[in-house]
Amino acid sequence: MESTINFVDDSLLKKVPSWRDYLAAKVGFRNHWYPIKLSREIGESQVVKATVCGENILLKRIDGKVFAIRDRCIHRGVPLSEKLECYSKGTITCWYHGFTYKWENGELCDILASPDSRAIGRRSIKTYPVEEAKGVVFVFVGDIDTTPHPLSEDVPPMFLDADMALEGDSYMVDSNWRVGCENGFDGLHVYIHRTSPLVNNTQRSLPIGHTAQSGKIELLEEDGKPKGVYDAFAHHDVLWDGSVEGEVVVKGVRSNRTDGAPTRTTAASLWLPGVLRVDDFPDQDRHQFEWYVPVTEDTHYYLIMIGKRVSNKEEEAEHVQEFWNRWKRVSLDGFNNQDIEARLALQKFYKRDRAWLEEILIEGDHPIVKWRELCHRHNRGVQSPDNL
Amino acid sequence: MESTINFVDDSLLKKVPSWRDYLAAKVGFRNHWYPIKLSREIGESQVVKATVCGENILLKRIDGKVFAIRDRCIHRGVPLSEKLECYSKGTITCWYHGFTYKWENGELCDILASPDSRAIGRRSIKTYPVEEAKGVVFVFVGDIDTTPHPLSEDVPPMFLDADMALEGDSYMVDSNWRVGCENGFDGLHVYIHRTSPLVNNTQRSLPIGHTAQSGKIELLEEDGKPKGVYDAFAHHDVLWDGSVEGEVVVKGVRSNRTDGAPTRTTAASLWLPGVLRVDDFPDQDRHQFEWYVPVTEDTHYYLIMIGKRVSNKEEEAEHVQEFWNRWKRVSLDGFNNQDIEARLALQKFYKRDRAWLEEILIEGDHPIVKWRELCHRHNRGVQSPDNL
Amino acid sequence: MESTINFVDDSLLKKVPSWRDYLAAKVGFRNHWYPIKLSREIGESQVVKATVCGENILLKRIDGKVFAIRDRCIHRGVPLSEKLECYSKGTITCWYHGFTYKWENGELCDILASPDSRAIGRRSIKTYPVEEAKGVVFVFVGDIDTTPHPLSEDVPPMFLDADMALEGDSYMVDSNWRVGCENGFDGLHVYIHRTSPLVNNTQRSLPIGHTAQSGKIELLEEDGKPKGVYDAFAHHDVLWDGSVEGEVVVKGVRSNRTDGAPTRTTAASLWLPGVLRVDDFPDQDRHQFEWYVPVTEDTHYYLIMIGKRVSNKEEEAEHVQEFWNRWKRVSLDGFNNQDIEARLALQKFYKRDRAWLEEILIEGDHPIVKWRELCHRHNRGVQSPDNL
Repeated sequence: MESTINFVDDSLLKKVPSWRDYLAAKVGFRNHWYPIKLSREIGESQVVKATVCGENILLKRIDGKVFAIRDRCIHRGVPLSEKLECYSKGTITCWYHGFTYKWENGELCDILASPDSRAIGRRSIKTYPVEEAKGVVFVFVGDIDTTPHPLSEDVPPMFLDADMALEGDSYMVDSNWRVGCENGFDGLHVYIHRTSPLVNNTQRSLPIGHTAQSGKIELLEEDGKPKGVYDAFAHHDVLWDGSVEGEVVVKGVRSNRTDGAPTRTTAASLWLPGVLRVDDFPDQDRHQFEWYVPVTEDTHYYLIMIGKRVSNKEEEAEHVQEFWNRWKRVSLDGFNNQDIEARLALQKFYKRDRAWLEEILIEGDHPIVKWRELCHRHNRGVQSPDNL
Repeated sequence: MESTINFVDDSLLKKVPSWRDYLAAKVGFRNHWYPIKLSREIGESQVVKATVCGENILLKRIDGKVFAIRDRCIHRGVPLSEKLECYSKGTITCWYHGFTYKWENGELCDILASPDSRAIGRRSIKTYPVEEAKGVVFVFVGDIDTTPHPLSEDVPPMFLDADMALEGDSYMVDSNWRVGCENGFDGLHVYIHRTSPLVNNTQRSLPIGHTAQSGKIELLEEDGKPKGVYDAFAHHDVLWDGSVEGEVVVKGVRSNRTDGAPTRTTAASLWLPGVLRVDDFPDQDRHQFEWYVPVTEDTHYYLIMIGKRVSNKEEEAEHVQEFWNRWKRVSLDGFNNQDIEARLALQKFYKRDRAWLEEILIEGDHPIVKWRELCHRHNRGVQSPDNL
Repeated sequence: MESTINFVDDSLLKKVPSWRDYLAAKVGFRNHWYPIKLSREIGESQVVKATVCGENILLKRIDGKVFAIRDRCIHRGVPLSEKLECYSKGTITCWYHGFTYKWENGELCDILASPDSRAIGRRSIKTYPVEEAKGVVFVFVGDIDTTPHPLSEDVPPMFLDADMALEGDSYMVDSNWRVGCENGFDGLHVYIHRTSPLVNNTQRSLPIGHTAQSGKIELLEEDGKPKGVYDAFAHHDVLWDGSVEGEVVVKGVRSNRTDGAPTRTTAASLWLPGVLRVDDFPDQDRHQFEWYVPVTEDTHYYLIMIGKRVSNKEEEAEHVQEFWNRWKRVSLDGFNNQDIEARLALQKFYKRDRAWLEEILIEGDHPIVKWRELCHRHNRGVQSPDNL
């Protein structure tokens, strides 16, 4: 990216004091952990490009561990990735003047064309702390002098649990990341999923809509823990019939399963810095985790991981196999693709900053407002033009 | 559209106090009637999209009558047209959460996914008053609380006359609407038409240029009547020879007809909100009506209707047939296509707001200035970003 | 072009007081001579288009002499080049209303559609003084009331010398002109040329880098003479080996020639308004002249001329032949193409005005800073939006 973003005008920000930072965070929040690639996408010695919060990043796996640096030479700003030059395992050299950086700490350790420069050893390229967990590579998009908090504070509870087996896949979606979060967390948008092959495949229930009772939304804001909004569907008013002018025109699907298992999703929760967890989805005992990672102001990286608790390697392998044989097609490509379409339509409206003040929310959108306010209270900094 | 338009800077507007609103009206004037489609383009039960003054509009013909609503759900702003859902003749349902509106008055009458919402019956989507006349569907692009004035105030005199038979066709042109108006009304631009097949086809005269005498331009500003600038060619200085350095290099065409009929166009007049009438054009006893309807800042809808007074159905049918057999090819595609090219060239200059202050107008441009000032005095509101 | 350029924000300009005008000069400096075409590209009676400093220009050769006018009718701003109409050798007529201008002085001498207009003889289109030298057509992009200084002040010394034979070719490059200047003048960027076929073809030396000693850069600022920065490579610290972590990973090439001729380039100098001279390049006794002419904010016209002193016509013809048989392929397409790639990469960074404050220059960039400051002191005006 590295392009010119028009940041949100102050006159608009003032109108939403309780979620000002959220409106401002067009390209996300700083000082948070974001997934950037699946582990399987970065092999040993491979150099891989990605963009998070508008920052172009290079990743390399060295002796198993992934390192991340900014893909922009500190000297004259050219992308290192334009022509990759790597003369030692632990360094990367800029093709333009030979500025050479250590992957480990970003130190400018050599300048091939100017070995006597005082900059050597004194300057460094921006590095990004990296954590790898559950098959996902996370980077901390932080300020230079900020020590990252533990990854566990930026992922939904359960995700890192030792017995949670996970497998997933990712997409690039041409909408802002906030539009991704809100579509996923919206209790009424099941309306668009009534035609999904998932319904038939799982023999489960899918209502036309369900509305959270406002007092029942749970806010998780404990220090040192993930910050999120938790919406248990047990407290929802569930709707099975959709009517126009008094006549039923659309019907939800009621499960005919008799095995006693929960026949529908039991909860959705949305966590900083933009990750959803849906419980008992796509089927009972599964948890679908969805990240909406800011890439540019109108693109987000959409990572979906499906988790299941397992007791041994065999069960884990079975879960992985199930992902590829069933959920990839039925849930990701057969259910979440409908969400992607909705986000593209939302983007046409919300790309205009003013639109965030023009929307007319209703009762069922209550959890979304709670989410915006939670982001405003707990984000660790709004990504700004100075960093791009 | 629904995109980000850069509106005209105040520092420029101040420099043209007598036609400030005209310079400001990049996407047109509000609270006026605009043609949006030809009647024949909207069949019974059909839903059709169009954009006027930057507003995306949906049209539907129900039991013969056309209704128009904004193509943007009031809830989260998605286009209804993204996936059309119509469960009853008189309603349209948003595909996203089932917000259902009445075509007649825009009332939010149902929300399929949330039937108990207090918004139902209280909120509504923007509707546009519609009038249909002479084979053209007009919408009133107005403020919510404005009662539309009669259509007759926004069309040139004669257009609605009972004995005026009309037939026409339309184009999308990639220039601002003001550039369309001015090219059409400009008495000197006949210069570009000397190569038109129309000249030979009609055996009529076409001078190289004709210049209005400044005192002779008529301004029509009576209350309750169309507001326009009327330019009778009888008062023009007509030029037949074009010279460079004293030598004739281009000649106009003088009619060799001897039947006593007027051998050239007798008048041009330009009316709010942007419609031209040319009398005795493309031939005697015909009137060409041309609308330049703002679509986006750099697109207008160009509707051409050719009218002729008739005394019975046979004459009307004959006129319609003449349009398709002769004028469509000779006048629209053989004469006005040259105007379209001129507008595309003008757009390269006038797309920069500053250009309106850099132009150097001459004597023959006097009617254009009168037009700008008339627009400034009589428009009913400048379309602004708040409506887009 | 004639498009909307975002000019550099004052808050940024204030941060670089010693080279403010250079940062501001996104589309170049006014009141300077720029090459616009090669002489061979404008045949007798031909009308040719070009853009310099954002101004669209038309050129015509009449009886051997080239004239230049703005490609924009003064009346309604349309490009004259949209449809060329030339009714006499010395005039050009606008296709829209017949405004006719004299190539010689821009005078509006006729309006075909309005021969009685008072504008005739009083108004004129902008003309550009033209000089032709060494097979290059230069225009003076000046203010209306500015008398051009001699061309000799805006070309590097030697270029106009009677015994300097020259031949060259040109390219359009999608980067800002300043990025072109700086890449060419940068002593460290030879690093990218180590793979060029030129090295082998000439059997000359090519180090990995060479760093100017700061006190040794010569500034040429005498009144009435070209203003430039002269960097003699004799004063450079030359580097032959490039190391990473103490190990040599890249080696420069040392000439094995024994004929006593200089085995490498002896100097580079950069001159207002943006032209480089490289001495003893691409081989001894040759001088490569490179212009980086502002076209738009992200395009420059890259003209390369190779010069050699000759004593007669035969030697001149031999030099021209050598250009086409050898240097075009080996130097322009085999060496300078690497520079073009570097400029495209630089543009990704420097297109953001803020980037000019974010770069981290090192010792070897000292001549570039001198260049920026010299431009600030000696430019004759910054091209501004008012002229576009």
